[in-house]
Amino acid sequence: MSIVFRTPIICVLLFFLTQFINAQNITLNRVEPPNWWIGMENTKLQLLVYGENISETKPIITYDGVTINSVTKLESNNYLFIDLTILNNTKEGVFDIIFTSNNGKELVYKYDLKSKKERNNSNQTVNASDVIYLITPDRFSNGDPTNDSTDDTLEKIDRSNKDGRHGGDIKGIINHLDYIQNLGITTLWLNPFLENDQPKYSYHGYGISDFYKTDSRFGGNKDFKDLVDLSHQKGMKIIMDQVFNHCGSGHWWMNDLPSENWLNQWETFTRSNFTNIAASDPHVSKSDYNLFTRGWFDTNLPDLNLDNLFLATYLIQNSIWWIEYSNLDGIRMDTYPYPDKKVMAKWIQTIKTEFPNFYIVAETWEAKASSLSYWNNGGVNNDGYNSYVNSVCDYPLYYSMLKAFGEENNIYKIYETLAEDFLYGDAFNNKIFNGNHDVGRLFTLLNEDVDKLKLSMAFILTTRGIPQLYYGDELLFDGDKPDGQLRKDFPGGWKSDKRNAFTKKGRTIQENDTYNYISTILHWRKNAKEIHTGKLKHFQPIENIYVYFRYTVTESTMVIINNSKNDINKYSLERYKESLVGYTSGMDIITNTKLSSLKTVNLKANKALIIKLSN
Amino acid sequence: MSIVFRTPIICVLLFFLTQFINAQNITLNRVEPPNWWIGMENTKLQLLVYGENISETKPIITYDGVTINSVTKLESNNYLFIDLTILNNTKEGVFDIIFTSNNGKELVYKYDLKSKKERNNSNQTVNASDVIYLITPDRFSNGDPTNDSTDDTLEKIDRSNKDGRHGGDIKGIINHLDYIQNLGITTLWLNPFLENDQPKYSYHGYGISDFYKTDSRFGGNKDFKDLVDLSHQKGMKIIMDQVFNHCGSGHWWMNDLPSENWLNQWETFTRSNFTNIAASDPHVSKSDYNLFTRGWFDTNLPDLNLDNLFLATYLIQNSIWWIEYSNLDGIRMDTYPYPDKKVMAKWIQTIKTEFPNFYIVAETWEAKASSLSYWNNGGVNNDGYNSYVNSVCDYPLYYSMLKAFGEENNIYKIYETLAEDFLYGDAFNNKIFNGNHDVGRLFTLLNEDVDKLKLSMAFILTTRGIPQLYYGDELLFDGDKPDGQLRKDFPGGWKSDKRNAFTKKGRTIQENDTYNYISTILHWRKNAKEIHTGKLKHFQPIENIYVYFRYTVTESTMVIINNSKNDINKYSLERYKESLVGYTSGMDIITNTKLSSLKTVNLKANKALIIKLSN
Repeated sequence: MSIVFRTPIICVLLFFLTQFINAQNITLNRVEPPNWWIGMENTKLQLLVYGENISETKPIITYDGVTINSVTKLESNNYLFIDLTILNNTKEGVFDIIFTSNNGKELVYKYDLKSKKERNNSNQTVNASDVIYLITPDRFSNGDPTNDSTDDTLEKIDRSNKDGRHGGDIKGIINHLDYIQNLGITTLWLNPFLENDQPKYSYHGYGISDFYKTDSRFGGNKDFKDLVDLSHQKGMKIIMDQVFNHCGSGHWWMNDLPSENWLNQWETFTRSNFTNIAASDPHVSKSDYNLFTRGWFDTNLPDLNLDNLFLATYLIQNSIWWIEYSNLDGIRMDTYPYPDKKVMAKWIQTIKTEFPNFYIVAETWEAKASSLSYWNNGGVNNDGYNSYVNSVCDYPLYYSMLKAFGEENNIYKIYETLAEDFLYGDAFNNKIFNGNHDVGRLFTLLNEDVDKLKLSMAFILTTRGIPQLYYGDELLFDGDKPDGQLRKDFPGGWKSDKRNAFTKKGRTIQENDTYNYISTILHWRKNAKEIHTGKLKHFQPIENIYVYFRYTVTESTMVIINNSKNDINKYSLERYKESLVGYTSGMDIITNTKLSSLKTVNLKANKALIIKLSN
Repeated sequence: MSIVFRTPIICVLLFFLTQFINAQNITLNRVEPPNWWIGMENTKLQLLVYGENISETKPIITYDGVTINSVTKLESNNYLFIDLTILNNTKEGVFDIIFTSNNGKELVYKYDLKSKKERNNSNQTVNASDVIYLITPDRFSNGDPTNDSTDDTLEKIDRSNKDGRHGGDIKGIINHLDYIQNLGITTLWLNPFLENDQPKYSYHGYGISDFYKTDSRFGGNKDFKDLVDLSHQKGMKIIMDQVFNHCGSGHWWMNDLPSENWLNQWETFTRSNFTNIAASDPHVSKSDYNLFTRGWFDTNLPDLNLDNLFLATYLIQNSIWWIEYSNLDGIRMDTYPYPDKKVMAKWIQTIKTEFPNFYIVAETWEAKASSLSYWNNGGVNNDGYNSYVNSVCDYPLYYSMLKAFGEENNIYKIYETLAEDFLYGDAFNNKIFNGNHDVGRLFTLLNEDVDKLKLSMAFILTTRGIPQLYYGDELLFDGDKPDGQLRKDFPGGWKSDKRNAFTKKGRTIQENDTYNYISTILHWRKNAKEIHTGKLKHFQPIENIYVYFRYTVTESTMVIINNSKNDINKYSLERYKESLVGYTSGMDIITNTKLSSLKTVNLKANKALIIKLSN
């Protein structure tokens, strides 16, 4: 984009009429989206224009196929919203948007129009054949030490501060794509990489200060585009983390809002009640619901008001922009239930219109399936709302895993949680996980019991859903939120690191053992159609042993999770015979051992068997 | 009913042909239903006829309007099933069913046909304007000591045995209808009173040995009919407890089943897995589901197989018979999810066809709303099954009360449970309870904290649903299942009792205090339309204080449950203002104190306020 001043052409006769306006300074600071594409299903586009007294100007476009339908000013003089139509037969090119003030002064924005990329829509998706690896970019690898601190951002690098910026960046991720691919991962999800120009605690990325700009400490927009391209070349996919509920208090518009209702405003700071069930509770009070959706997440995270349709349109277009610009495969939407739910549904519908199979996973931190289902396309709810979200974060299953493999040590909790799957539109599309950047590392929560961690891995990589790991789970990263070690640096991600855990040599024996365990399952999983698209049949756990099958018409895998403390020799499979019909032998894919009979198996305490059946 | 032998009229010529049959003994022991009614919507009736070699006979009926459509023999020679049509214009009267053997011997059953009672269907129901009082008949009051032990039953009275028969009976209940009415109860539910001719542990009633006969130790069928009539005269209603899943091992047919598949048979005794979620689990294995529905409850409770349509018809007709015979108002069906679910749905549809508003509550011991909803008419489930049950037992709410008022002391548990109400077809019809004959007395489970017991009472008597108490809750009965004191004798129910707790004088000060507390709410509740038909709006509990409103367009009651340990003077009602619009004052119905302002209220630790609003 570029902003150019033209010679004024105003008539001298109008001088006295416009002298007041002339007295005011007029600037053109931003036009967003900064560029767009021809060939969208939706031929409408709304530009947000920001500049001092810009509303005192009149915008003009003279370009075949592009029409200004309306121009709107809100409360602030410093914004204009221009509604355009861009016909599908418009030619690629750059056109001028000329902003003319009453005194004839002209400001020009050169607007770039390119054709929308041709895509294989069925490729641009994420599903249960994938496994997602979540990376906190600041903490993974520092690929470009020159951007550790940058002139246009406040917070500087301080690796000694657990809440500070450590210098990781997109280049660091690019540098280790082979590590991730070798592990067996198919899809990356990055915590938000957009600019967070906050004075402190900005590394996590959820306080966005510019929706169109990669944080300079992570690199530039081009770096992210490169990451997508390189990942695609390796057959991997990228999920971007977006946030509509709030921005950072350092956002550029915070000192100069388009209108007061751009944010949800309160007389004094008012925190959300975080009562997610308010959305689906048929008995909810208006005040609880209002506080849930309009309360702020934190003092430094102003709550965006998507009731304001200009803001809603701004954010929806921002998503479309990032998809088309970077060619990414999926979006993880933060705090999905908090913004206006109608707008969130429209957001998804708009994306799906342009990119039919695009993957969207909603952060839905709900403890119960009955309230999580509210946010799931086709899920059960109280008011017929459809969010059109096909993939929700399966916190109920996460909590049941803590009970199954943690101190309660009761795998029935998993069984009874999965029995509620009918509440969802399609539970096989739920994102399932045994950890993320918000909850303690499972290894820590399981009292650093490696066997239990492995059981949880064997489970999430074979049950229904789209599994997601958190970077370092494969190397027994520990840490919890209270201890500030949840999002620790990946050893070897910094040149000064004493060891490089990205390499086999740099890992301990125990780390390599766990890495290999997970990697073995992941690589097998890549070609296990029954895991990708098969049904699930499970049997009520008895004595803490849980047996289930993933199966299609032609393929079947039997999983036996022995969550008990007992080795059992010659464990009878008689009870499972209905699922063994037609099969006579199997292969334990973890140990690569053939089972010549399916009458009995030997079970080890706290070990799982993943047995690919054959005849 | 009566069975009469007629003079044989057989022709001597046939003697040699029939001599083998003649050699066999033929008897006629039972015809069931023993009588029937004209004017049923369903004009079909299937008689079960039992007698030695009765299948060797041919039944004949000669009565205008009554036709035999078919006669069926199953595996046993000793049963016949006669399918009849009884036209609606048939006249009242007694007709002969003549069973003629091949040798001409005739056995006659005199079948009584009366007209179906004219009813006000809208009266024959139970709903949220009612409060149910559950009585275990053997333990309430011994009204007729002459039937404490009877000749036709095995187990004799032994009041010293906690599992034995103590002598309570229907007459004892009749004698204390005034007590129950004065308490403020509108509806009685009795644990099963049909014959349980088991050698021991028969008092609970769930091992039925004759589906058409009141246990002689409780009285006769006529006593139950009298109880219904007397209750109706007092404006009260009666719910009968029925059991289709199993019978008692002492049932008369156990030594001579109509067919092997009359029961669910196993090679060796096989107990149900009691895995209720098997019904709604989309991933369930066939073997788990089969064990759930076909496994036996206990060694002495043979599992009836309702797949056998003759048995299904027998039981459905049995329900219709008891309703028409006794004019009762509701049925509580034991272990509802366990028998064949299609037959159970047909059972309800058949009853509703004859008695449109009849109340049926299903015992559905489900811990989660998502699986309980499976059994609820219009509730959410995985396979489109509709049980047509309008009222289910709200165990999820019961468990949440234990957490709210028990050791966890967290009233949020109630709030989040009610937030799942959209899963049900109509949660306002759920039967809600803080105890019954199967779970420990709430008073005991709440560590005998009278304040907490009162909170639970204030709650269930004002929240959505149909409340049910267990006899003696109003007098702080304690007891749990393990200690065998759950179903203890009501003091004063036996002449020899040292005190009579049915009278004020016979109760302790604390008992009277609790009795008065509950009675006050119950009597107020009788005319509180907003509790009967109003909506519920509740507010997220903060600091263990839970506030909700029950309201119609014209009436509103505010309930404040202070579950915290703190007295709070001038507790602000500002947060609840959306529900206080139009009201300026209120009446605390427990203390009968007027509140002249609705700005603040004074709260006492562990006390509830029930405030009827006015302006």
